[in-house]
Amino acid sequence: MIKHYLLSPGPTPIPNEVQLAMAQTMIHHRTPEFAAVLEEARQGLRTLFGTKNDVIILASSGTGAMEAGVANLFSPRDKVIVVNGGKFGERWLRICRAYALDVVEIKVEWGKAVEVNAVEAALRSHPDAKGVLIQASETSTTTLHPVREIAELTRDGGPLLLVDGVTAVGVLSVPMDEWGIDALVTGSQKAMMLPPGLAFIGLSDRAWERARETASPRFYFDLESERKGQAKGSTAYTPAVSLVFGLCASLKLMREEGLERVYARHDRMARATRAAATAMRLKLLSPDNPSPAATGLYVPEGCNADALLDYLRVQMGVTLAEGQDDLQGKAIRIAHVGHMGAFDVIVAVSALEMAFRKFGLPITLGTGVAAAQEILLEALD
Amino acid sequence: MIKHYLLSPGPTPIPNEVQLAMAQTMIHHRTPEFAAVLEEARQGLRTLFGTKNDVIILASSGTGAMEAGVANLFSPRDKVIVVNGGKFGERWLRICRAYALDVVEIKVEWGKAVEVNAVEAALRSHPDAKGVLIQASETSTTTLHPVREIAELTRDGGPLLLVDGVTAVGVLSVPMDEWGIDALVTGSQKAMMLPPGLAFIGLSDRAWERARETASPRFYFDLESERKGQAKGSTAYTPAVSLVFGLCASLKLMREEGLERVYARHDRMARATRAAATAMRLKLLSPDNPSPAATGLYVPEGCNADALLDYLRVQMGVTLAEGQDDLQGKAIRIAHVGHMGAFDVIVAVSALEMAFRKFGLPITLGTGVAAAQEILLEALD
Repeated sequence: MIKHYLLSPGPTPIPNEVQLAMAQTMIHHRTPEFAAVLEEARQGLRTLFGTKNDVIILASSGTGAMEAGVANLFSPRDKVIVVNGGKFGERWLRICRAYALDVVEIKVEWGKAVEVNAVEAALRSHPDAKGVLIQASETSTTTLHPVREIAELTRDGGPLLLVDGVTAVGVLSVPMDEWGIDALVTGSQKAMMLPPGLAFIGLSDRAWERARETASPRFYFDLESERKGQAKGSTAYTPAVSLVFGLCASLKLMREEGLERVYARHDRMARATRAAATAMRLKLLSPDNPSPAATGLYVPEGCNADALLDYLRVQMGVTLAEGQDDLQGKAIRIAHVGHMGAFDVIVAVSALEMAFRKFGLPITLGTGVAAAQEILLEALD
Repeated sequence: MIKHYLLSPGPTPIPNEVQLAMAQTMIHHRTPEFAAVLEEARQGLRTLFGTKNDVIILASSGTGAMEAGVANLFSPRDKVIVVNGGKFGERWLRICRAYALDVVEIKVEWGKAVEVNAVEAALRSHPDAKGVLIQASETSTTTLHPVREIAELTRDGGPLLLVDGVTAVGVLSVPMDEWGIDALVTGSQKAMMLPPGLAFIGLSDRAWERARETASPRFYFDLESERKGQAKGSTAYTPAVSLVFGLCASLKLMREEGLERVYARHDRMARATRAAATAMRLKLLSPDNPSPAATGLYVPEGCNADALLDYLRVQMGVTLAEGQDDLQGKAIRIAHVGHMGAFDVIVAVSALEMAFRKFGLPITLGTGVAAAQEILLEALD
C-alpha cells in the first residue's frame, strides 16, 4: 500500500468539500437551479479576479481561455508583444501565430523575470502594438513576471495587457481592475482546487469594447456570446455542470479561509521549500523572482531528475513535476498551488531527502525538513 | 485552510477504494446480490483471522463482539481469568461482571505485558476456570501481551482463550487456528480501514461447542443464530450493507498488498516512531513490549499532554490520541493502524517537533524526523 501525494502544479489535490459538491445529483443546465449555481460562481470569480466585470466560465483547459483571449481581442496581422520566458510564454507565441498575428517576441532567459525596461523599449519601438501578452507566474520556470509594473506602461491608452494567471490567480493577489489588466486567464485544476475541465477569463471594459471590433474567427470561444448568456444564467453551449458545482464549493472554501490568508499560505510554503533547498545545497531554478506556485530546483550533478521523479512516484507515492523542455532531466518542481498545507512541504522535502540517500547523493537526513519547519512555524500562534 | 491528518488508533483514515465501494447504490439485504457480497467478505475474514471456521460479522462496535464472546461462551457464575493491563483489559472485566461471571483478575502495571508465569499460576490456582480473557494489543498502553505463549497453556483441554484483537487483527499476525485461540474479536474502524459500525468474531470448534451449552442471556448477539444465517448468505438482523461493501474493498486492498507486507509496514512505522521518540528524548509508554498499532509517549515534565494534543489538532490539523485514565495529561499516542504509511509517521513527528518548539520544550527541529527516516528507508528498493 502506497499513499499518494499529488504535489504537481496541476492537477492539484481536490478537497473533500469539492468532491462532495461534484457528486451531487446531475441537473439540467437550462433550469433556474443551474442559473442560481452559475450566478453564485460568477460572484465568487469577480472577487477572486478583483474585477467588477464578468468573468467568463468556459468548458476547456486553461489554454482554451488563452486562445479565447487572442481570438476575441485581436484581428489577423495585429501586432502584439509576447514575453517568452518559458514553456507558457511560448504558448502565447504559438497561439498568436496560429491566429496570424504579427508577433514581437521578448525572449527571456529561463528562470529570469522579464525586465520592465525591456517591455518599455519594445513598446517604444512598436507604438503600433495592439497587445502585450505575458504570464503572471511562468509555471515551467517557477518565476514571477512584474505584471503590475508592466500594467503601468499599458493601462492608459496603451496596448491591451493579456495575462496568463493559470498559476497566479488564487496563489497571489492579481487584482485586475486595480492593476489595469485587460484579460486575466486561469484554469480549474490549479489554485481553484478542481479537476481539469474549466477555464476562466475576465476582461476589462476596454477589452470588451475591443472584442466588438476584432475580426479573428471564433465560435466556441466567442466571449461576447458567452457573456450575454451567462449574465442571464445560461452558457452558450453545454456547461460542465458538476465542475460548476465544485467551483462554488472551492470559491466558498477560499472565502472562508480569506484570500489574504490563502496568498500568505502559498507564500509561506514556497519560502519553506526554498529554505529547505538551500539547507540541502540545491540550486533554485528561479533564485531572484521565485513564484509561490511552485519551487523549481536543479538536481545535483550526475543525478537524472527524471529517474529521481520516477523513484519518488513509484517507490514513495510522491508526485512532483518534471523540468520542462530544456530543463528536462536537470530540474524538478515542487508545487504549492491549491489545496496544500505545511505538511505537503514536509512530505516533499523528507521524501526528497530519502530519495537522495537512495541515489547516493550527499544528504544529512532532516536538514531540509528542519529548515522548512522554521518557516512553517510562522503560521502557528 | 487546515488539512486534516487522522493519526488516532480508530477511527482511522478510509482509503478511496473503500469510500467508493461504500458509495455504491444501496441494495436490499435479503437478495442473492447481498449474499454474494457477504460470502466474499466471509472468505476474506477467514484468511485474515487464520481460521477455517466462520468469522461472524456483527453490526456493532468492537465492544459488541467482546460482549458476544462472553455472552455466548459462559454461563452466570462461571469462573474466568481476566488479564487487566489497561483500559481494554478493564473492559473485559466489566463485561464479565455484567454477565455475573466469577472473575479472577490478573492486574498488570500499565505499559507492561502480562507475565506468562502469572497466567500459569492463576490457571494452577483456579483449575475450574472456564476462560482466559486478554488483549493481543492493549490499545490504551500501546502494549503487546504474549498471546501465543498463553495459548500454549490453554489450548489442549484448558479454559477457552478469548482474545480482543481490536488493534491486532490486520496489524500483526494472530493466526487463531495455528495458535489455538478460541475467540478472536476486532472492529471495523482500525486496521480494517472502515468507518466504525462493524465488529467481527471468530470462534474455534470447541468454542462453538461451548456456545451450545451456555446459559447467559443473548438475543442480538446470539452467535449460533448468526452463524446459521450468514452461512446461507443472510444475517439474522439487518446488516450494515454499505459497510459490508466497504469490507470487501478493504479485504481486497489487504490481499493485494499481501498480509506479510501489511504487518511489516505497521512494524516499520512503529519502529520509526520509537526511533524518533528516542532521538527526541521522550519516554515510551511501553518500552519492553511495544505494539505496532500505536506508539505511546510520555510528554516532558511540565507539559500538559492534552493541551499539546489540542494544539496539534486545532493549529496543525494533526489528530493524535490522548493518554487514557491514569495517563491522561501525561501521555500521547501516535497510531500506525490501518491506511497509514511512511509519511504519516513523518507528519506526526514533524508536527510534534514544531509543537514542542511552540510549547517552549527543548527540541532540535528535524532530529526526530531524521531518526524516523533512517528506519523508513528500509522499505525502499
